[in-house]
Amino acid sequence: MNYLKSYIMKCFQIAWFIKIHSCQKAVWLLVLFALTTFTFQTNAQWGRRPVVSPDILNDNSVIFRLYAPDASSVKLSGNWMQGWGASMELERNDTGLFQITIDPLAPEIYTYSFIIDGVRVLDPGNFNIVRDGVRNESVFTIRGEGSDLYAVFKVPHGTVSKVWYPSPTLGMDRRMFVYTPPDYYTSDVSYPVLYLFHGAGGDEDAWTTLGRTNYILDNLIAAGEAVPMIVIMTNGVPTMAAAPDDQPVDLEIDRINAGGPGGMISGKFEKSLVKDVIPFVEKNFRVIADADHRAISGLSMGGFHTQMITNANPGMFNYIGVMSMGLFNDTRLGNYNKDEHVAQIKALKDSGVKLYWIACGKDDFLYESVVNLRKFYDDLDLEYVYRESTGGHTWPNWRIYLAEFVPMLFK
Amino acid sequence: MNYLKSYIMKCFQIAWFIKIHSCQKAVWLLVLFALTTFTFQTNAQWGRRPVVSPDILNDNSVIFRLYAPDASSVKLSGNWMQGWGASMELERNDTGLFQITIDPLAPEIYTYSFIIDGVRVLDPGNFNIVRDGVRNESVFTIRGEGSDLYAVFKVPHGTVSKVWYPSPTLGMDRRMFVYTPPDYYTSDVSYPVLYLFHGAGGDEDAWTTLGRTNYILDNLIAAGEAVPMIVIMTNGVPTMAAAPDDQPVDLEIDRINAGGPGGMISGKFEKSLVKDVIPFVEKNFRVIADADHRAISGLSMGGFHTQMITNANPGMFNYIGVMSMGLFNDTRLGNYNKDEHVAQIKALKDSGVKLYWIACGKDDFLYESVVNLRKFYDDLDLEYVYRESTGGHTWPNWRIYLAEFVPMLFK
Repeated sequence: MNYLKSYIMKCFQIAWFIKIHSCQKAVWLLVLFALTTFTFQTNAQWGRRPVVSPDILNDNSVIFRLYAPDASSVKLSGNWMQGWGASMELERNDTGLFQITIDPLAPEIYTYSFIIDGVRVLDPGNFNIVRDGVRNESVFTIRGEGSDLYAVFKVPHGTVSKVWYPSPTLGMDRRMFVYTPPDYYTSDVSYPVLYLFHGAGGDEDAWTTLGRTNYILDNLIAAGEAVPMIVIMTNGVPTMAAAPDDQPVDLEIDRINAGGPGGMISGKFEKSLVKDVIPFVEKNFRVIADADHRAISGLSMGGFHTQMITNANPGMFNYIGVMSMGLFNDTRLGNYNKDEHVAQIKALKDSGVKLYWIACGKDDFLYESVVNLRKFYDDLDLEYVYRESTGGHTWPNWRIYLAEFVPMLFK
Repeated sequence: MNYLKSYIMKCFQIAWFIKIHSCQKAVWLLVLFALTTFTFQTNAQWGRRPVVSPDILNDNSVIFRLYAPDASSVKLSGNWMQGWGASMELERNDTGLFQITIDPLAPEIYTYSFIIDGVRVLDPGNFNIVRDGVRNESVFTIRGEGSDLYAVFKVPHGTVSKVWYPSPTLGMDRRMFVYTPPDYYTSDVSYPVLYLFHGAGGDEDAWTTLGRTNYILDNLIAAGEAVPMIVIMTNGVPTMAAAPDDQPVDLEIDRINAGGPGGMISGKFEKSLVKDVIPFVEKNFRVIADADHRAISGLSMGGFHTQMITNANPGMFNYIGVMSMGLFNDTRLGNYNKDEHVAQIKALKDSGVKLYWIACGKDDFLYESVVNLRKFYDDLDLEYVYRESTGGHTWPNWRIYLAEFVPMLFK
């Protein structure tokens, strides 16, 4: 992220190397060239000068810079800005360097992009990128109390594994991300399991990249605030096997021809979770296979999946977390049956659920649906814990929700 | 990648959903909004029209498109173009859509970028990005015989795990990527191990993202061409613990202040591989722990590491592969001792190495150093297999080398 520093460091390294080793031969310069050239070539190739962007100052204000002498306009669009599509104009100096300094930001992970002459692009000066499904954004972190839970500290780290499993229900092998806690491979202990679902537009990668789930768990476990657990992060789109780069080539055609609501609201993912995923996990990992040691949660579409699965399977999960998703009562889905829904919630109530947790932001565009869900549960006397946050339908909220939900599990 | 198709599919899905479920209530439209909005919002937010880029035609020619009505110039720079910094101008039509069609490409994975009014950026229409250290590039694949080895097929898939391990030698916990073959978690078999190193500018992520190592292994194992094996992909920069997003915050300062050749040519990574990595792997994974079942290979800086480690540890690895890196004879490193080097190679020769493999491209800027290495080995009668390819110091070559090296191992 910090190009100037790394550039100076490189020069220093080479100078030092030449000094201490008294290099005399051209072939050693060639070696040095081989070992250090790529970064330099990269800088040159990408039209970069030693321009630092973003440059986080001590007071947590941030300077964004872009060297673009031939561009007429450069704007900055960041997820901390208010209003849909908000952006700010960078100012050009006489060398063609565009720059803007923004007011101090609270500790958090932020995403942003530049708009160069009307085209929205990633910041070429920042190699840190996060992908959320088909969307990429430049990313940076303001360190502090609000973001340290997502940072990598000197604590024991769990393992994140990309595991393929058979899904007879969906007729394909599929990929999941599995977090196993720090002591998993050195102990004989069996662990509880949290099943954790992404939202529409995401995939099995989202909860570890944007969600920082593994580091949230590492930090909470190290602090003694969470029980060591396994986290299973599936792909919630039943017509997909895996994230784009890992999608089998034979499935691409089916995906395009699949048509119909296919994926999201077909009920197929929910079936595969119960019939394929849970049996696979409980066979292949050291888990405690009962309701007291199964938790389930998801955001947005994943909150929908969470409800569908727990409604249909009372007694399977004793810890349930629904993030940024309400709905269901007072709707007319073709196959929606309110009596059945009521019966499901009553069965859930009787099944011994230890925690039913609902979280939503005040500005979430699904806020009303959550109000309706709570009313529905209130009418049926289903006990739940409600957590209302500021903000909307965003990853900062989902990371916070996860960090609050996990310490309540399996205790 | 194919926005037009996915856009049409989305519209079709919504229309169908509304039709089959006879939705009447606003709340259901809200749900639909929730479940499909992100992709659309993303498109809108990113200034995208349903513009497909890159658009791979049946004859493997490729159209690149960018909607940029306010830009004066858009260029394309691709890794298939000849000459350093080569680029081609896109043509603007009267709506502000820039477009270029390039001649058919051979099957391979290609990387490229756009240059919008002089600023090098990723293609905003293509969400597929690969990172090589601090460099990101847009990426696409031309399917066919030359690239199918890197594709995801309906074959059993191994697991890729991101594993943290203690490195007392380097004074930190570090991260490695571990490929375990498809049957690892369901069998009791012990496997041979390939230690595989990245080049300068890369990290432990490179061999699975740019290198597609896991899919190369999956495909070769499924075809019966490679023995099932574990592949250990470490981070070769001893002052780093992990790739940028996973680098511990406490190490950032050390990294910048570290100075000196620190990382690359300090000999420290090599020590940690032998003292920390191999013991950890042999303790925590089911491996066959002898020289006949240890292979080692690396590209560029990783080829340097491979030589340093095998020179200093005869009898530890019986399969050695050096990619795109020569050198050593006729040099004057402060602590270089030619007599010692000669003695090392003689000891290696006597140690029972079954395969010493050297690969380099004709246009590699390190080609001469490989000529010198071969001459050095010829003079000492060290038997090796030499593979000379076309092309230079590039990932297409390293993927091919890996796919050729792996089938020769452990047989």
